[in-house]
Amino acid sequence: MKTKYALISVCIFAGFAHADDTPKNIIYMIGDGMGPAFTTAYRYYQDNPDTQEIEPTVYDAILVGMAKTYPDDDTFVTDSAASATALSSGVKSYNGAIAVDSDKKPVRTMLEIAKEQGMTTALVATSQINHATPASFAAHNESRRNYDEIADDYLDNEIKGHLPVDLLLGGGVRYFEREDRNLAEEFKQQGYQYLTDFEALPSLQTLPALGLFADKAFPFALDENPTRLEVMTNKALSLLQRTDNGFFVMIEGSQIDWCGHANDIACAMAEMDDFAKSIALAKAYVDAHPDTLLVVTADHSTGGLTIGSNGKYRWDTEVIKGVRQTAWPLAMALAKSTDIRQAWSESVDWGLSDEQYQQLKQAKQSEEPAKALYREVKDVINKQSYTGWTTKGHTAVDVQVFAYGKGSQKFVGSQNNTDIAKQLIEFIQ
Amino acid sequence: MKTKYALISVCIFAGFAHADDTPKNIIYMIGDGMGPAFTTAYRYYQDNPDTQEIEPTVYDAILVGMAKTYPDDDTFVTDSAASATALSSGVKSYNGAIAVDSDKKPVRTMLEIAKEQGMTTALVATSQINHATPASFAAHNESRRNYDEIADDYLDNEIKGHLPVDLLLGGGVRYFEREDRNLAEEFKQQGYQYLTDFEALPSLQTLPALGLFADKAFPFALDENPTRLEVMTNKALSLLQRTDNGFFVMIEGSQIDWCGHANDIACAMAEMDDFAKSIALAKAYVDAHPDTLLVVTADHSTGGLTIGSNGKYRWDTEVIKGVRQTAWPLAMALAKSTDIRQAWSESVDWGLSDEQYQQLKQAKQSEEPAKALYREVKDVINKQSYTGWTTKGHTAVDVQVFAYGKGSQKFVGSQNNTDIAKQLIEFIQ
Repeated sequence: MKTKYALISVCIFAGFAHADDTPKNIIYMIGDGMGPAFTTAYRYYQDNPDTQEIEPTVYDAILVGMAKTYPDDDTFVTDSAASATALSSGVKSYNGAIAVDSDKKPVRTMLEIAKEQGMTTALVATSQINHATPASFAAHNESRRNYDEIADDYLDNEIKGHLPVDLLLGGGVRYFEREDRNLAEEFKQQGYQYLTDFEALPSLQTLPALGLFADKAFPFALDENPTRLEVMTNKALSLLQRTDNGFFVMIEGSQIDWCGHANDIACAMAEMDDFAKSIALAKAYVDAHPDTLLVVTADHSTGGLTIGSNGKYRWDTEVIKGVRQTAWPLAMALAKSTDIRQAWSESVDWGLSDEQYQQLKQAKQSEEPAKALYREVKDVINKQSYTGWTTKGHTAVDVQVFAYGKGSQKFVGSQNNTDIAKQLIEFIQ
Repeated sequence: MKTKYALISVCIFAGFAHADDTPKNIIYMIGDGMGPAFTTAYRYYQDNPDTQEIEPTVYDAILVGMAKTYPDDDTFVTDSAASATALSSGVKSYNGAIAVDSDKKPVRTMLEIAKEQGMTTALVATSQINHATPASFAAHNESRRNYDEIADDYLDNEIKGHLPVDLLLGGGVRYFEREDRNLAEEFKQQGYQYLTDFEALPSLQTLPALGLFADKAFPFALDENPTRLEVMTNKALSLLQRTDNGFFVMIEGSQIDWCGHANDIACAMAEMDDFAKSIALAKAYVDAHPDTLLVVTADHSTGGLTIGSNGKYRWDTEVIKGVRQTAWPLAMALAKSTDIRQAWSESVDWGLSDEQYQQLKQAKQSEEPAKALYREVKDVINKQSYTGWTTKGHTAVDVQVFAYGKGSQKFVGSQNNTDIAKQLIEFIQ
């Protein structure tokens, strides 16, 4: 008996030793607006129709659970600020809150704690870098709308004598080169390299750095650079891997949400693709650096997207893949054109039916042709592909939680969005 | 070194021994049409508004993963038959298939395998018991519409000289007491007790038994008995626990789907409640019998339900809780009434606005008042509660997978619906 007990003790001890799964580095990725319908839709969108198999996505490879997104407000439907505050600090707050609680008192974020611990910190987004999600990691404000004050915090919110974020990549030049305060200049004085040319990003070799590659946000992936988040993710990880004391990076797929607000499915799928490829890079990073944890989630779902609509048991991905522009430039091109079918064919691989042609023609002849065309273009594409939407805002469906690497087993099952933050903070502290 | 290796070997062996988590009994529960928006909505619907906390549901307690539902067809959107075939046999088939493959050849179901192994088997549903989901466990047919042939299979599909199912509880008298063949009589000749009075169910003390408590399906939970599935689940488990060689039972929350097809949110939440309470019973059974595995999933989502709609960041559960009838009887009452507001107040706890009153009055004055009122009643409730729908059919969003008890860790993460069946079959074989 004695031998057996001794053996059990050793095994239990080995178990505990193994259970100390505190990662050295944390890659936290947030797909803004990426509810379960988006990840499912993306699987079918990216499927190779020439193979029998439905190819799994990177989301399928690392799904572990789901998260509740309700805010501390008089509603179950969160905005991006309240949800980002929950995801950055573990505290539920009101819609609009940037890392402040319901009493508007600042709450400590995991990025700030990481900085306190001497880790290297980074924020990457395709929105302006002072937009709600990244803002809630390194700034504190009672309103997400105070863009200037939020940008100021990236300089003024010092942690143990250091700026909070060592690497910022995103958009938002207008908030950093202002008449009342030139933050970009102040960043340079603090030793940051400052880049505004996206083509120059490969040349960036050291930290700290501030890269702002758009006046506000990047253009949509579908309209210009389909891999801008992937490129920034790649650069961020290659810079961060050289750090000694571990790193924390938050990478946001910012514009999935905006395509959802617009009810523009081709727009959304291109954003999902850029985000998926960025996640694949992060996953490969974990494979090469097993002391790293990757956690991916969403702040909420947007638009009430459904795969299938109007009673039809189908969703036509070829229709969506055939759309090569987002709805606004497409509508503008139609508004300016003298030949609707010709202008349509320059951006879309499938032709208009007579009924669809009449629908667009009528919109073009209305009092506000661009606005009407913008609405009707989306209606044509959504109906043709059997894509459903119920709102221009958010919905409250639980979002998925994906995790991979050291400590990932802690995120299995249903959890509150605040629980994700609490677990990550426990790892960082 | 030698000692260390020996120790590792013993620990690994201990690990393997522990990993043999084959359950003796399997409780498999399918929420028909229960996509992720339904389980999230139900959490907020059942929340006690007098407490600060949002109370977690039984779904939250046992979530482990998600499942892909696409059929082997020219679409990503499955019907209940193809999905039930995938969930019963591990084989993807075409929409409409009842446990046959795409060549219309019968496929072996886990219930049949369980019967071959000498286990006790049971099917419980609130639809007719020969409806697509239960049918796909014990019958084989090229079309879900062949209700009589499917019912025949419950007698003719003998497994090692036994009928396939020891306990059937649901609706469907008309398919079992037919002019061309009296299956109920044949069941009795085979030693089955035959019950048609739901009030007599408590008196059932032995197997085998056939209980059919409705001509076709049960009435909706909201309209009559809000706990009929819970009562049947309780009875089924108390009968099955006396069996020696293990049991397999499939319990379906059949009508979540039908409320989804109708886009009737109060109807859907009442069905979710009956299903949730049935799951809670099953979970308690597992607590008392740790050799049992509970797996819960859905076959697909229905209706394109969204929590929030029309741009509003809210979902009003008090509105939904205030509706005490499904839309059809409510519309019929309005159609027959002389006073819309009076008739409305008999079934709904909140009053109509002037605009809503006019909307219903206009419907009542139309050529087909009952039909128009049925449509407009739902429109009023959906708009008032900010509930969104995009279709009267199904959608392709991944569904959740819930598991609890022995072997439950096998269902963590993303999987195909066929993988759930394959794992359960591996346990049974």
